[in-house]
Amino acid sequence: MIEWKNFDKLESYKTLQGLKNKVELKSVMAGANGAKRVAEYSVPMSNGMVYNFASKQVDDTVLDALAKLADEAQLVDKYAALYNGEGEVINTGEKRLVLHQLTRGQLGDDVIADGVNKREFYVKQQERIADFANKVHAGEIVNEKGEKFTSVVQIGIGGSDLGPRAMYLALENWAKVTGTFKMEAHFISNVDPDDAAAVLAGVDVAHSIFILVSKSGTTLETLTNESFVKDALAKAGLDASKHMIAVTSETSPLAKSADYLDAFFMDDYIGGRYSSTSSVGGAVLSLAFGPDVFARFLNGAAAEDALAKNTDIRKNPALLDALIGVYERNVLGYESTAVLPYSQALSRFPAHLQQLDMESNGKSVNRFGEKVDYVTGPVIFGEPGTNGQHSFYQLLHQGTNIIPLQFVGFKKSQMATDVVIEGSTSQQKLKANVAAQIMAFACGKDDDNRNKYFEGNRPSSIIVGEQLTPETLGALLAHFENKVMFQGFVWNVNSFDQEGVQLGKVLAKKVLAGDTSDALAAYAKLLDI
Amino acid sequence: MIEWKNFDKLESYKTLQGLKNKVELKSVMAGANGAKRVAEYSVPMSNGMVYNFASKQVDDTVLDALAKLADEAQLVDKYAALYNGEGEVINTGEKRLVLHQLTRGQLGDDVIADGVNKREFYVKQQERIADFANKVHAGEIVNEKGEKFTSVVQIGIGGSDLGPRAMYLALENWAKVTGTFKMEAHFISNVDPDDAAAVLAGVDVAHSIFILVSKSGTTLETLTNESFVKDALAKAGLDASKHMIAVTSETSPLAKSADYLDAFFMDDYIGGRYSSTSSVGGAVLSLAFGPDVFARFLNGAAAEDALAKNTDIRKNPALLDALIGVYERNVLGYESTAVLPYSQALSRFPAHLQQLDMESNGKSVNRFGEKVDYVTGPVIFGEPGTNGQHSFYQLLHQGTNIIPLQFVGFKKSQMATDVVIEGSTSQQKLKANVAAQIMAFACGKDDDNRNKYFEGNRPSSIIVGEQLTPETLGALLAHFENKVMFQGFVWNVNSFDQEGVQLGKVLAKKVLAGDTSDALAAYAKLLDI
Repeated sequence: MIEWKNFDKLESYKTLQGLKNKVELKSVMAGANGAKRVAEYSVPMSNGMVYNFASKQVDDTVLDALAKLADEAQLVDKYAALYNGEGEVINTGEKRLVLHQLTRGQLGDDVIADGVNKREFYVKQQERIADFANKVHAGEIVNEKGEKFTSVVQIGIGGSDLGPRAMYLALENWAKVTGTFKMEAHFISNVDPDDAAAVLAGVDVAHSIFILVSKSGTTLETLTNESFVKDALAKAGLDASKHMIAVTSETSPLAKSADYLDAFFMDDYIGGRYSSTSSVGGAVLSLAFGPDVFARFLNGAAAEDALAKNTDIRKNPALLDALIGVYERNVLGYESTAVLPYSQALSRFPAHLQQLDMESNGKSVNRFGEKVDYVTGPVIFGEPGTNGQHSFYQLLHQGTNIIPLQFVGFKKSQMATDVVIEGSTSQQKLKANVAAQIMAFACGKDDDNRNKYFEGNRPSSIIVGEQLTPETLGALLAHFENKVMFQGFVWNVNSFDQEGVQLGKVLAKKVLAGDTSDALAAYAKLLDI
Repeated sequence: MIEWKNFDKLESYKTLQGLKNKVELKSVMAGANGAKRVAEYSVPMSNGMVYNFASKQVDDTVLDALAKLADEAQLVDKYAALYNGEGEVINTGEKRLVLHQLTRGQLGDDVIADGVNKREFYVKQQERIADFANKVHAGEIVNEKGEKFTSVVQIGIGGSDLGPRAMYLALENWAKVTGTFKMEAHFISNVDPDDAAAVLAGVDVAHSIFILVSKSGTTLETLTNESFVKDALAKAGLDASKHMIAVTSETSPLAKSADYLDAFFMDDYIGGRYSSTSSVGGAVLSLAFGPDVFARFLNGAAAEDALAKNTDIRKNPALLDALIGVYERNVLGYESTAVLPYSQALSRFPAHLQQLDMESNGKSVNRFGEKVDYVTGPVIFGEPGTNGQHSFYQLLHQGTNIIPLQFVGFKKSQMATDVVIEGSTSQQKLKANVAAQIMAFACGKDDDNRNKYFEGNRPSSIIVGEQLTPETLGALLAHFENKVMFQGFVWNVNSFDQEGVQLGKVLAKKVLAGDTSDALAAYAKLLDI
């Protein structure tokens, strides 16, 4: 029997508050004990990856308390309730099931909703997309003039943009060197007219296939940008309906419109920020890299989802990562977390995680709409290493606030083009830098000159994989999705709605309708609207 | 006589700590009083821009206390000492003058250093770059085969990358529609071999001119990436020395090397993160857009620098912005600040500001190397609106921590291509959204359903300009540089060094040399270095 209790009503909350004495990384990571921690504080992930938390401010006592929290808060049971589709218990506000894991695998019971087996529904959409993409690649589906499409342009915003864009960038170069690359992808998101205008000026419109992505079919930015695209197609003398497909829900106005070549479906059980493995990511990634690459990406995510079922926190990397994050947030009092992938291909992965985490858990009320008395989701930011080292790492090392860090690294590069300088390859230098940073943050450095002194005790974890491939990318994505989900369970918030984005939309409509007074009117005047 | 005192040793520090009762934005921004604040809490910037702080948690009492702080901490006097080059008082650790403002104008006395009038030196470099760029554009400087260069690739990291890249992206589309666009620019920064490999695979190497940017001529990433480029040129049968220029200091090993077509100079008085208006930004921007556009960018910055001399905080936007930020950080206790440009062209401007601010003021010791007892620089993050609205704004509106916001907006788009949907253009929608967001954050919304309740009282400011042009971009850049400088003066830190980045470099070298033990060796093994 699942109980939804506020975090501060749990016994383990009190226990954890008694464990505020930070583990001194400076001492535990020194000498042989440090090496022992690196060996022992390591949890296998799927696809040959590993989550290592040696440089987090935890010890066996803290880990035991976190394990008790996981049990008391029934975190794995709640996950099971979610993937088994047990009632409308998960996304309480919107009274919806939460089924994004089902887009990549069957984790438990059949989920029947709206009279449909949802796994079958998602698989069917994936197959329909695969069929469509294969026909585009084979030149069976062509533009109005009978010519092959050579690029794809996604029109979407938020979850219909950040995740798919980050995934595309993560695999673009890998696909090019492995021979799976099919066509360039571009993305239009912002309502700023310069976004659509610039993207359209930079693509071959006549040979582009456009994907309109909007679950509701009513997203302001997306419909506006669709008009932009239709204008551009019309100006090029082309019939827009021969150049556009839609990804939407079956009940949306876009679903059965003659304006589109075809439509592929998601549903209300897939939140935008969790939609990279649904048709939202599926269409653009299958067109760009082929359906097989997309299927491999889903397999990677499915394997990681399966690991998250484990009740032993030492065998469940997403759960453990989540719990350590809660400890840092609610016990140690840290406000932000930096995500630092040592992989240029993951350049926009932090922006995706920023949405995933901050939109899911940036909440002040619990799932019953009651204000909670503890802090919830952190601020998430990040840039790839080593770039960040030459930018904001100064504050991370020597600033007055401690920011927990989440590193990601790979043993091998994607493109396998490299140079040896001073006896090492660039890939070796990249890896040496991330290892060095972890130790610099943990142990610091004494120096009589306080300006060159590093106090250390700055916690970090690292996920290490063999290479960034469709499988490891899928696993990485699922890891963070599941981490955020588990944290939402601990905080007893609904991680699957986003009421906080509504008020701005309502007020923007008022401004456009001229229905303003006082300060809002003054701002409208200032901006010359 | 300038005195360098810790912030908490000032009388005004105590006064401000007594002003912790937050101004209730929800009430002061309501009704006619809100409109009055929008009209009055507004400071003209240069180039037709305005800094509006109506929705900040300040009132006349707080502003008076901040004005006293500005006087007591001698902020404008310290700025004068800096631009007049008075001794080596500013960058204490490295014992260097700080002269980036001098790259765009003479604000005070002649500055003579190393036997040279520094303004003349910077102007001379600008002229040499202009001459070089004009010759490239005219086909007088050509590739080895006598053909015109068609693109430029900058090799640099940190300040040699983020600022110039953000400025290039900010003006790329503007230049294309105004007919000033000369050639595409690309950037290689990360030591990750996939960065260089991908950029080189995407450019026409034979018709590219490469700019190697490193002040010291010893930056690991940059020299490694130079080898990458030389390899690529050699493989294409080209002589690298005919395709590369250097931007460096006159004393660096790159300065007079036969490996480069030419070399342009910066010096030790220009910090990397402050170098966009020096030769570091000058070479790539002059090649991409022509020297006239770069000169206009400098003029915009110079005008904003001149405003920062004003001792009246109501007439000095950078100073006022800095002081309000200090009040938010040290009195109201906010840890992060989000930068939210409603302009897709400013997509990487937040990443530049992240370096500028966090590397400058992420310090725990004062300029004399003594630990300070108050918090200093905040975490900076951000993405363009409206994209961010569909991502992390949920936490900004309804999360458990308050994050001050810094909006930027423009009356007109850059490309002037637009569509009318539901009675408004995209540009109008963009502006309506930023106005709406400010009011939503300030005033919130009551709702019996707590999940749809917005508590408001979330502070923001906005900078509004006519259009994003070289001039307004320069002014925007200088505004933030000067804001960060003034905050550094208040916190009594040295905003112009970055000792926090050194330790990681030292440890990375140890890893590569195999000189590790214990935990560092264990991490090296984990990563298979």
